[in-house]
Parts: sequence; structure tokens; C-alpha cells
Amino acid sequence: LTLSLDTKVMAQEKNQMVRLAKIKVDTSQLEMYNAALKEQMTTAIRVEPGVLTYYAVADKSDPTNITILEIYVDTAAYNSHIATPHFKKYKETVKNMVKSLELIDVTLIGSAKKTGM
Amino acid sequence: LTLSLDTKVMAQEKNQMVRLAKIKVDTSQLEMYNAALKEQMTTAIRVEPGVLTYYAVADKSDPTNITILEIYVDTAAYNSHIATPHFKKYKETVKNMVKSLELIDVTLIGSAKKTGM
Repeated sequence: LTLSLDTKVMAQEKNQMVRLAKIKVDTSQLEMYNAALKEQMTTAIRVEPGVLTYYAVADKSDPTNITILEIYVDTAAYNSHIATPHFKKYKETVKNMVKSLELIDVTLIGSAKKTGM
Repeated sequence: LTLSLDTKVMAQEKNQMVRLAKIKVDTSQLEMYNAALKEQMTTAIRVEPGVLTYYAVADKSDPTNITILEIYVDTAAYNSHIATPHFKKYKETVKNMVKSLELIDVTLIGSAKKTGM
């Protein structure tokens, strides 16, 4: 891994939709859930111009507690996203794996990262 | 803003330290807190090779609820980070602005984003 020391600093673009999803997953299905989540994220980023960023993390103390940071170009891009075949497939796949889902609309105060990240 | 449709997909590097910080800020000092936070994030990313990524978001329903996603090269980089003058300045500046702080060690399940992000 070669990291540039260049930095990228961003504030929220005017119309962007930024969200945290908090998901509780059934313990016995966690591995399958994570695989479905990764497939959904990578497909959406690859094929949808309006899907910008996903970070999915799991609590170390309890990996069934998952938090996802999501950034879309705007709410239209999000509405388009949830109508895609890959998103519908994800929702169908995980419907019996997810014990609870909380969606929190947020504002990006700011982000900063190495340009290689 | 010109976005590439190229994508970047990442899993957690072996030794990386990934964390969520959940911070409750005193309402009357929120603007000053956010300014101090942004200064800390951008300085750390600019001058510390071991500080890789920060995203700071605020709940739309209550912007005093802040969540920060942090990625460091490893725990040594984090320990070095909290000893820097800019981090100590941040902690001193915000000590009477922060009502509560919860630090949650997490694992990066995966991230995916447009390369321009």
C-alpha cells in the first residue's frame, strides 16, 4: 500500500444526502449478511453514478451491531438506488437476517483523508 | 465537481485501528465545537502520516449529536496522534463544550466509493 501524503478535505455538497444506518444482525447469519452487504455496496458504487460513498463498520465488542455511513448525490439518487435490482436483491436476501434497522439522516460536518484512501 | 465513475473498494488493512466516536456537544457552543473539530481533523490528516480518514456527521434532528468515523494506520499511530500539539489543543479547546464522549472500537467490514470522493 502506497499512501500519498496529499490530503482531501470536504464539506457537504449542497444537495447531498448523508445517512447513518444502524443495523442489528442475527448472530447465526452474520457472515451471510456481511457478504450480501458488501455485494450491495460495491455494485451500487460501480453502476450508480449517484451513489458516492459507503463505509460499513461492526462493533468489535459485538459484530452484530453494524453502522453504515452512506453518501448519495441527492435524494433523487437515493430514490433511484432503492429501486435498482441489486438493492432489491439485497433487501430480499437480508430480510430475515436483520433484527432491527435505524436510519438517521445526518449532515456532513466535514471529512478529511489521505488522497490514497 | 467532476466525479470519476471509477470505484475504490477497501477492506480493513491488518493492523488498522478503526473507531466511532459519539459526542454530545453543548448546544450553545456547537458552532465553536465544529470549528475546533474541523481544524483538528484537517491538521491531523495533513501532518500525520498515520492518520488516514475522518468523517464527522451530525444528526439532522439534533446537530449536537455528532458521530466521527476515524481510521488510523495502527494503534501506534493513534497513540502518537493523541500526543500531538494540535490534538492536545483540540482537547483543551473543547473540554467544556463536550457533554459526553463514547469511543467504540470497530472493524471495517468494507468501504466502497467513487475514486473522486
